[in-house]
Amino acid sequence: MIWLRQYRKELLVGDVVAGIIVAFMMIPQGMAYALVAGLPPVTGLYASLLPALAYALFGSSMVQSVGPMAITSLMVGTSIGAMATAGTPLYELLSQQLALAAGLVLFLCGVLRLGFLSNFFSRPVMSGFTSGAAIVIALGQCKPLLGMAHGFSLGAINVPSTALGFASVALLLLARYALPAVLKPFKGWVAEVLPKMAPIAVVVGAALVVSLMGLEGAGVKTVGAIPAGLPAVGFVPSAEYWRPLLVPALAIGFMVFLASQSAAQSLALKRDERIDTNRELLGLGAANLASALSGGFVVTGSISRSAVNYSAGANTPLASLISALLIAIILCVPNAWLSLLPMPAMAATIIVAVMGMVDLTTLAQCWCHDRSDAATLLATAAGVLLIGVEEGVVVGVVLSFASLVWRSSRPHIAIIGRMPGTEHFRNVERYAVETLPGVVMLRVDSAMVFNNTDSVIERVEQELHAGGPALKHLVLVLSAVNMVDTTALLALTELNKQMRAHQRFLHLCEVRGPVMDRLKHSKLVTQELTGQVFLSAAQAFEYLSAKSSD
Amino acid sequence: MIWLRQYRKELLVGDVVAGIIVAFMMIPQGMAYALVAGLPPVTGLYASLLPALAYALFGSSMVQSVGPMAITSLMVGTSIGAMATAGTPLYELLSQQLALAAGLVLFLCGVLRLGFLSNFFSRPVMSGFTSGAAIVIALGQCKPLLGMAHGFSLGAINVPSTALGFASVALLLLARYALPAVLKPFKGWVAEVLPKMAPIAVVVGAALVVSLMGLEGAGVKTVGAIPAGLPAVGFVPSAEYWRPLLVPALAIGFMVFLASQSAAQSLALKRDERIDTNRELLGLGAANLASALSGGFVVTGSISRSAVNYSAGANTPLASLISALLIAIILCVPNAWLSLLPMPAMAATIIVAVMGMVDLTTLAQCWCHDRSDAATLLATAAGVLLIGVEEGVVVGVVLSFASLVWRSSRPHIAIIGRMPGTEHFRNVERYAVETLPGVVMLRVDSAMVFNNTDSVIERVEQELHAGGPALKHLVLVLSAVNMVDTTALLALTELNKQMRAHQRFLHLCEVRGPVMDRLKHSKLVTQELTGQVFLSAAQAFEYLSAKSSD
Repeated sequence: MIWLRQYRKELLVGDVVAGIIVAFMMIPQGMAYALVAGLPPVTGLYASLLPALAYALFGSSMVQSVGPMAITSLMVGTSIGAMATAGTPLYELLSQQLALAAGLVLFLCGVLRLGFLSNFFSRPVMSGFTSGAAIVIALGQCKPLLGMAHGFSLGAINVPSTALGFASVALLLLARYALPAVLKPFKGWVAEVLPKMAPIAVVVGAALVVSLMGLEGAGVKTVGAIPAGLPAVGFVPSAEYWRPLLVPALAIGFMVFLASQSAAQSLALKRDERIDTNRELLGLGAANLASALSGGFVVTGSISRSAVNYSAGANTPLASLISALLIAIILCVPNAWLSLLPMPAMAATIIVAVMGMVDLTTLAQCWCHDRSDAATLLATAAGVLLIGVEEGVVVGVVLSFASLVWRSSRPHIAIIGRMPGTEHFRNVERYAVETLPGVVMLRVDSAMVFNNTDSVIERVEQELHAGGPALKHLVLVLSAVNMVDTTALLALTELNKQMRAHQRFLHLCEVRGPVMDRLKHSKLVTQELTGQVFLSAAQAFEYLSAKSSD
Repeated sequence: MIWLRQYRKELLVGDVVAGIIVAFMMIPQGMAYALVAGLPPVTGLYASLLPALAYALFGSSMVQSVGPMAITSLMVGTSIGAMATAGTPLYELLSQQLALAAGLVLFLCGVLRLGFLSNFFSRPVMSGFTSGAAIVIALGQCKPLLGMAHGFSLGAINVPSTALGFASVALLLLARYALPAVLKPFKGWVAEVLPKMAPIAVVVGAALVVSLMGLEGAGVKTVGAIPAGLPAVGFVPSAEYWRPLLVPALAIGFMVFLASQSAAQSLALKRDERIDTNRELLGLGAANLASALSGGFVVTGSISRSAVNYSAGANTPLASLISALLIAIILCVPNAWLSLLPMPAMAATIIVAVMGMVDLTTLAQCWCHDRSDAATLLATAAGVLLIGVEEGVVVGVVLSFASLVWRSSRPHIAIIGRMPGTEHFRNVERYAVETLPGVVMLRVDSAMVFNNTDSVIERVEQELHAGGPALKHLVLVLSAVNMVDTTALLALTELNKQMRAHQRFLHLCEVRGPVMDRLKHSKLVTQELTGQVFLSAAQAFEYLSAKSSD
């Protein structure tokens, strides 16, 4: 709460404007994501009240907007959907309990400083996951968009709903792609923020159309009665459901953290702030506990809302508190207009929102830079679509680590020589360099650890074999070796012994400080090494060149 | 079979002598390891016949002695013990079927060229596993050593058996530790090979003692009747047991390969041969199929026997064929003396053999070089002892990869400067080096991949922050970076953008060839980089030094 103690009145205008704008963004979004989670729309509004306060108290980002988010809502829906039927009191209870469990997971991760676990998720995995989940969410909204009550068939399509839904999609797409260009003449944040108000404008407009044209009688469903007033605080968790909720809570807790973290980080970069990962975990944990206790469900920092918050001028969490206050007021004053929001228009806002999450840019970047990353991305997306949301992430994480291990087990090894007239050494296959007769200088471009020891030794033996009896000196250039584990040390010791038996000399050079700190206690370096340890490749080259010309 | 076509008569004497010696080593060992596997002793002899022939046909090592081995026998016992009772026909059938399944696994790995999987097992894991398994085997032999029939209590101890067992242990220890010194005056292989004949001498001696003193009546158990003649060839596998045998077959197949591989490799080093890993897999697969089809159980290359084989002068697989022939003859001639071998003496040979496998040397080496490797070793051994043989290996492999990942996520990063008067750059904390004002040169000592991107960027931002506005140039020295994956590339791209916003320059240097091959297609390097790409740190230093003195 340092921000509150240091609050200056110059900050107030920005915070108030941003607070109002985000509130109007939050209302349709919160209700829509509650629908994605299979919950009554009002719970999405509840989840935008106390969590914002809790995050303001404990979180570390100044402009983060905490509330329901598409992907975590999808995960809530798929997890709870396996244990209860949507619309039943048990379903709602479990959604609160899941938020409680996820909040505890986040809190615990914060206390245990486990923020580093986010390193397990590479960008390709996150991108594939987001794209896959976006498609799953969009597919799930096709039924309400087309006004289908039961089943999924052409006959079940309701024409007025479909017309309303498609019109909403068209308007939202126009607002996203055409409006910024139209608004360009306006300066500052207007062109950036105004298009984000399109969802509320479209759903309110659609509600007007429905009530004016009496479309409810023609089969267009609406959001339905929204209970007036603030949510009841507190609930009684079900003891028997802690166990089945454990794995979903871990998965969702992690996703909450990752989503929020990437939002907070991208904005912190712009604002030149630093995010404290572990305080961030505490803030998100507190927000989810608050959501559970006030009739909400899982919440996280939203990239899209936080960006609007920032662009609209938010300076401190006060902006989010103003949003929450505004939503609370709307809940307390007569709010019949909310109950008239038509489902096809709500579905349209969801579909258009998640369409923007399908991330082809990262796929293209992966494809250009590293096909294996592209494969991981596609496999993660396919896993999410075909196996399941959480399973898809597991597929991605396993694949990304497998490729890491696979690569580290096949290190790049280059024979190097001296660039004429310099002290630089380069790969003989890439540069015209000088080499010495009877000497091979091998640069190992990887840590030397158990899973690549065999392939390093095999390569060394190949070179020794190829060099024949004339080859007397092998120089291992360890400039890129940041680790020599026991397996590699023992293998080097054996190599050295074998070379001694053939009157050959094993030299080391460019040994990194941390590696030398370990090696200097080993028998290999203190007693057994047939050759020498040189500071640099240049020194080794000079010494061996002097020796061969003796 | 190249060795047979190229056979020269000079090789014959060595092969015959080694063949005879290994046969006499094999007889008590084979029978003892059959007991470890819970099988009739004669199966250990059967497992020394056809497998030797099959390996001679398909294997790649010239001096490998293939047959039963302590650890694989233990694994056979624990796997089959969970499915059937020792002594029943089902138990024997399953042991043959397991050898068949393990043989198929090995064959398949050879055909699919999966030999590289052995890289997954670090030396600490192998050492911890071997030590743990040795202790498990030794503990399992305490009952026969002490002549206990049922249960495990002081009252169940049979005094004559215990006396015989302890006397055998004492003699075997004397032979191992004192005999080599006594035999030193003899030249050549005698001092090395003769002590290995101790087990057969001790068990035959013990058999004489038992029959002369009539100790069988006093409760000393003997090996019992050995069926005369060669084993029947062929058997009918049980269809319903393929599934439960799958996991044990995979685990045992792998262990067969690892044991044999380390035996073959250490001898190939001495003999200056190369082992073809995938042909080795084919040879071991064929040996296990042969064992299954001829009444045997899982076999592998034995380090101890192969070393004796080599020391006694074996030149080609003919030595193993001669051993097999000799054992076959012993099975066919009257062999009542084999049935009199007393169990306490057999247990003594097993205990003394596996005592030598408890590997404290590697533990000490790990402890000195890398505590994390020592912890992995101890955890593997503890896992084998407390959880189970196969589970222990899994613990070890998982731990070793976890520590690999953990380390790669916390890379060493050094600020470097120029060693005065040279073109070498070293860590400012370790050497007295020159640095430039307004310039930071950071050397990242690790691949830049998703699981360490955050910590690299965090460190860079720390330095930028610490440098304040005066800091204009950041040079990333990538000499130790063998990989920049998409996650790291995107993070660098963002870093570069952020630095541009602060009128700072990001330079790269010492980029490895394979890394540059990828980076040169990226937007970062082709268009966006605020600074330059230098071939060497020295060039970067000169350029920036000229610039700052402008």
